Amino acid sequence: MRPSGRSPDSLRPIRFTRGFTRHAEGSVLVEFGETRVLCTASVENRVPPWLRNSNRGWVTAEYGMLPRATGSRTDREAARGRQQGRTVEIQRLIGRSLRAVVDLEALGERRIVVDCDVLQADGGTRTASITGGYVALADAVSRLLETGKIRRNPLHGHVAAISVGIYQGTPVLDLDYAEDSEAETDMNVVMNDAGHFIEVQGTAEGHAFRRAELDAMLDLASSGIDTLVNEQRTALALALDT
Amino acid sequence: MRPSGRSPDSLRPIRFTRGFTRHAEGSVLVEFGETRVLCTASVENRVPPWLRNSNRGWVTAEYGMLPRATGSRTDREAARGRQQGRTVEIQRLIGRSLRAVVDLEALGERRIVVDCDVLQADGGTRTASITGGYVALADAVSRLLETGKIRRNPLHGHVAAISVGIYQGTPVLDLDYAEDSEAETDMNVVMNDAGHFIEVQGTAEGHAFRRAELDAMLDLASSGIDTLVNEQRTALALALDT
Amino acid sequence: MRPSGRSPDSLRPIRFTRGFTRHAEGSVLVEFGETRVLCTASVENRVPPWLRNSNRGWVTAEYGMLPRATGSRTDREAARGRQQGRTVEIQRLIGRSLRAVVDLEALGERRIVVDCDVLQADGGTRTASITGGYVALADAVSRLLETGKIRRNPLHGHVAAISVGIYQGTPVLDLDYAEDSEAETDMNVVMNDAGHFIEVQGTAEGHAFRRAELDAMLDLASSGIDTLVNEQRTALALALDT
Amino acid sequence: MRPSGRSPDSLRPIRFTRGFTRHAEGSVLVEFGETRVLCTASVENRVPPWLRNSNRGWVTAEYGMLPRATGSRTDREAARGRQQGRTVEIQRLIGRSLRAVVDLEALGERRIVVDCDVLQADGGTRTASITGGYVALADAVSRLLETGKIRRNPLHGHVAAISVGIYQGTPVLDLDYAEDSEAETDMNVVMNDAGHFIEVQGTAEGHAFRRAELDAMLDLASSGIDTLVNEQRTALALALDT
Amino acid sequence: MRPSGRSPDSLRPIRFTRGFTRHAEGSVLVEFGETRVLCTASVENRVPPWLRNSNRGWVTAEYGMLPRATGSRTDREAARGRQQGRTVEIQRLIGRSLRAVVDLEALGERRIVVDCDVLQADGGTRTASITGGYVALADAVSRLLETGKIRRNPLHGHVAAISVGIYQGTPVLDLDYAEDSEAETDMNVVMNDAGHFIEVQGTAEGHAFRRAELDAMLDLASSGIDTLVNEQRTALALALDT
Amino acid sequence: MRPSGRSPDSLRPIRFTRGFTRHAEGSVLVEFGETRVLCTASVENRVPPWLRNSNRGWVTAEYGMLPRATGSRTDREAARGRQQGRTVEIQRLIGRSLRAVVDLEALGERRIVVDCDVLQADGGTRTASITGGYVALADAVSRLLETGKIRRNPLHGHVAAISVGIYQGTPVLDLDYAEDSEAETDMNVVMNDAGHFIEVQGTAEGHAFRRAELDAMLDLASSGIDTLVNEQRTALALALDT
Repeated sequence: MRPSGRSPDSLRPIRFTRGFTRHAEGSVLVEFGETRVLCTASVENRVPPWLRNSNRGWVTAEYGMLPRATGSRTDREAARGRQQGRTVEIQRLIGRSLRAVVDLEALGERRIVVDCDVLQADGGTRTASITGGYVALADAVSRLLETGKIRRNPLHGHVAAISVGIYQGTPVLDLDYAEDSEAETDMNVVMNDAGHFIEVQGTAEGHAFRRAELDAMLDLASSGIDTLVNEQRTALALALDT
Repeated sequence: MRPSGRSPDSLRPIRFTRGFTRHAEGSVLVEFGETRVLCTASVENRVPPWLRNSNRGWVTAEYGMLPRATGSRTDREAARGRQQGRTVEIQRLIGRSLRAVVDLEALGERRIVVDCDVLQADGGTRTASITGGYVALADAVSRLLETGKIRRNPLHGHVAAISVGIYQGTPVLDLDYAEDSEAETDMNVVMNDAGHFIEVQGTAEGHAFRRAELDAMLDLASSGIDTLVNEQRTALALALDT
Repeated sequence: MRPSGRSPDSLRPIRFTRGFTRHAEGSVLVEFGETRVLCTASVENRVPPWLRNSNRGWVTAEYGMLPRATGSRTDREAARGRQQGRTVEIQRLIGRSLRAVVDLEALGERRIVVDCDVLQADGGTRTASITGGYVALADAVSRLLETGKIRRNPLHGHVAAISVGIYQGTPVLDLDYAEDSEAETDMNVVMNDAGHFIEVQGTAEGHAFRRAELDAMLDLASSGIDTLVNEQRTALALALDT
Repeated sequence: MRPSGRSPDSLRPIRFTRGFTRHAEGSVLVEFGETRVLCTASVENRVPPWLRNSNRGWVTAEYGMLPRATGSRTDREAARGRQQGRTVEIQRLIGRSLRAVVDLEALGERRIVVDCDVLQADGGTRTASITGGYVALADAVSRLLETGKIRRNPLHGHVAAISVGIYQGTPVLDLDYAEDSEAETDMNVVMNDAGHFIEVQGTAEGHAFRRAELDAMLDLASSGIDTLVNEQRTALALALDT
Repeated sequence: MRPSGRSPDSLRPIRFTRGFTRHAEGSVLVEFGETRVLCTASVENRVPPWLRNSNRGWVTAEYGMLPRATGSRTDREAARGRQQGRTVEIQRLIGRSLRAVVDLEALGERRIVVDCDVLQADGGTRTASITGGYVALADAVSRLLETGKIRRNPLHGHVAAISVGIYQGTPVLDLDYAEDSEAETDMNVVMNDAGHFIEVQGTAEGHAFRRAELDAMLDLASSGIDTLVNEQRTALALALDT
Repeated sequence: MRPSGRSPDSLRPIRFTRGFTRHAEGSVLVEFGETRVLCTASVENRVPPWLRNSNRGWVTAEYGMLPRATGSRTDREAARGRQQGRTVEIQRLIGRSLRAVVDLEALGERRIVVDCDVLQADGGTRTASITGGYVALADAVSRLLETGKIRRNPLHGHVAAISVGIYQGTPVLDLDYAEDSEAETDMNVVMNDAGHFIEVQGTAEGHAFRRAELDAMLDLASSGIDTLVNEQRTALALALDT
């Protein structure tokens, strides 16, 4: 039995609140149960130095956690003067995942920064960030299309992410913090809407995992991502007042 | 006529949402119109080195702005590796203001950190932070009292803050971003519930201001803070489910 | 009775030594009693990025304290690798205060940096920095005028600053370190030669202060600044051998 | 046809030179073809703060690349003042992988740091680091056992790592730099000598990969790691003059 | 003919102003012609970690240059967040030189920090710092002896330093900035009052120098340091009001 | 008797391994006995800002020590976020020494960076770096000449370096770590192939040294460098397969 009472293959309630803040071109509060991440997509008319005059754009991500998003307060990275290794890893993952569904030429020579700031953490902040970041990105892209700044939609698919793990010997989907702390294996899977893999990151926490366990986790992830993509579609189908 | 359409002496709508996030001992979303700041108060069982074995506690504050809280994206301070001068000034002001109503001996040898993170900015983020930070601090203190960790209430008053300025020759209360950008003078006033001053910071933006203008601004601030203290009282009178 | 033996409304002996060092376009040692600050004004033919091709100049300030300017040695900021919050606040204040009397268009596309380095501290280092920094700035501007690099004097007034406070219940002017350490309220006031306010920063140290106390302190400051402006005029009236 | 001329399932020549430098408790130059990494294991009689008085030890890793290990010179991280995100990710991966085969209680309250410094890079530096780092770690542990500092062998298995990828539509093993630059998918797999997974990190570079491709890559990795573990055993079976 | 008009073997006017500032245990303004350095010696009742409980003390030095001590303004190191390589080299040299005449056991478990801050630079700031730093150190030591904190004088000699160089083919003593900029060779020599060497640092600027040139420079340095030691003795013989 | 058993005037075995790594334009492993330093010379088509459009090139050096090159592990500078003072001093010395034999105009507007990374330390790492760095630099220059990128050889001589010291009262050449730790005086001498001095850096460790001791050390250094230059010539005379 999972601490959350969920069946092994069930996700937490998923919610996307588009237009959560007013300034960003895309602004989405994503909730995976008690995990809440504010994802904003900001469009800028400049690209990193290595892309200047290339007619190609760039999508990047930054990740942060408010100091008291967690059970006990963590130091503010700005005050310590450096981002932790974990932060750097996560924001690189988010950026790679989002770029996997973007045609950077169609974007033109501009940069979209997706900021994922965790307001409240309960496990799965990186998968929520990717999944919600995609929705914010989609809203920013829509605005570029609507205002005629780009002609062709640079998004050639959806991307979503979910965690899977082995909890007390059983493969389970979408671990919350209590489950994650005790899981023997923790895996984050990023997929597109065709059901293909963009990123797979599995780590044995307790003991090494077998191929059969890996297979079971991938099956769970696949079905979870299917649901997430549908939720993204439903959310994006609504009109957004701006 | 103010861009906001408000009369010179009227505040924007003020709202406190207590319990906005779940982990912190105090967690309040404060809204001054479109300015929204998440204030959390975290209790820690340790004090800065210079207070060890002193039987006295400490209250401090940190301030941050999400990168896209503003009209155009600002660099993430954690990524740049240092806090800006403006950030340091603001968090020092918030900390001093809150400590002005705390009996640090009654708090005992523990530290309360009030984190003020701006989710959306529209002028007045520092005054909203002080005013909302006080409510978060009050909730954290209540919990310490309820759980018997301290006996005596270390809060000996309320503290609230508001901005005043000279806009097109007229003294006005609680400037939003549009007004603040064009104000000739900008002043932040921090007061307690007895109507006495804790901090006064006035800056001439356009031309130097006269004593009569200063007096008019202080009168406005005084009446605004009166209202804010009442709003704090109303908000804190409600039961909080935790 | 003040520790210094001064009457409540009397300044410490004020002295400006122009041409204290030889390389800077303006170089002034300012003394407020035992507080001694070396202020140099350096003219540079470049402006910050946001002013390029604007035909406008910039005036900025930096502040530092020699490690043993104080009673016990403080760490060297260059060795620690960062400026303290207090330093950042003070140098921002000095810069804003000086800019308040400069017509940046008349200055042309150049930058003047006013460095204020405290050789010996006894309270009031920021007010001495502003007051002496103005004299250094005036000397640098004179040289620009004399050498024909600018035509019109960009200085449209004087600026000076003084501290006031409540010491043992009495409002007093120009606090030295011994007085400042025990003051209940500490206020720094920056004014121009028309007697108008450029900056007012008051902080309750012990208990909150009342409107009447604030008024008394502002009166004291006003008279003190009157004297300082006269001292600046006297100092600048002398010929300077270079 | 691979640029290297190898068949899809063949490793590059693997070589371990134990005792490559003289000071470290374990010192191994590992070569995967033209990739050469110096791995040293240093035993220290102290543990990180969170493990003090826990009777448990710690194993950690640091990774670096000499500036001209690569085709064009990269900036020295010490000179830039910070480690790159890529470096941080890699050293966290090496540390986690090595800890997966260590019984930290049997190690006692001491720390082993495995430094992996790339002398020459040609793809696969992180997998070479893990595989060679294990041999250095084993040598350091042997010395602890021989000198009686620990009684029980804290290593409960081998760990090795290899990269796999999809190159021109074909799954291939152990990519060199030329192959890696053009691969559509890049995956690093860390396994123990029982053939179970410790870490799986797959990234789609060109287009998303399918489940069947993932399966084929995992099969290749599994057989490659089998060979690597045998090579480690052969290398460690030799006597080491110290 | 030297630009300064001095003969090859003559020093600039040397002046020591003891008690230049009031807080430090030793405070000396040293002038080598137009080069002016404020040297303060601060006594602290703590030692670096590696000397704790060793009954030995430590003497160290820090060096800084005010931003406009030089002909054109140099960036403030505190603002840039790091000390330049040149600064680090110089302060290490000053510290080693001063320690060469101190019996660290006689000093007891305390630290003396000698801060050398250049108010005005005209060549030879490092040699002035060592020579003036010694006088500040001697004053701080005298105070320790007078107040009975130490019994035995830890200073077992004088230390002084001077620069020598080859200017237009001629060996010259004590180069000012104009000479130093054009010198073919630049050498700093640190000696004690017995005429023995503590440090010799010679650098060919233009072309490599011959043994005979080196010998001539050492002869000049030796006679210059003889004079400096006498000047130190004369300065220290005066009573110092504190 | 020296710990190494060598006579006072004998060098350790010297070895240069050219082409030690494959990517750099020059790559040399230099060994002074058990001290081993990897020196690579990298040619870049850009110069520092102050040389742009000057038709002159630049040669610079960076120095690093692998964490376990030494008897006990030292912290990785990249992880600590700053280079130590000792590192900065050494790399500045290497750069100055190499530039002393380079005609920067003949080099053309390009930069050569010589990286000296210590794989194993046993005293004399800076002198080995200069001596080996020269060989790497010569190989890089040869390649520029062979490929016709420059016409004239910018190297107008050899440069080599050696340490000398006073060990138990006797002047000795080329100190290893055991000798260096106990030496009373330590001197590094850099000379060219004409037997002239480029840099002399002598430090009294125990007591100050006399002129006669200095002379004896310089004689030893001179003869040692003679040998080193011959070894460089021999090494460079061999054909290098690339």
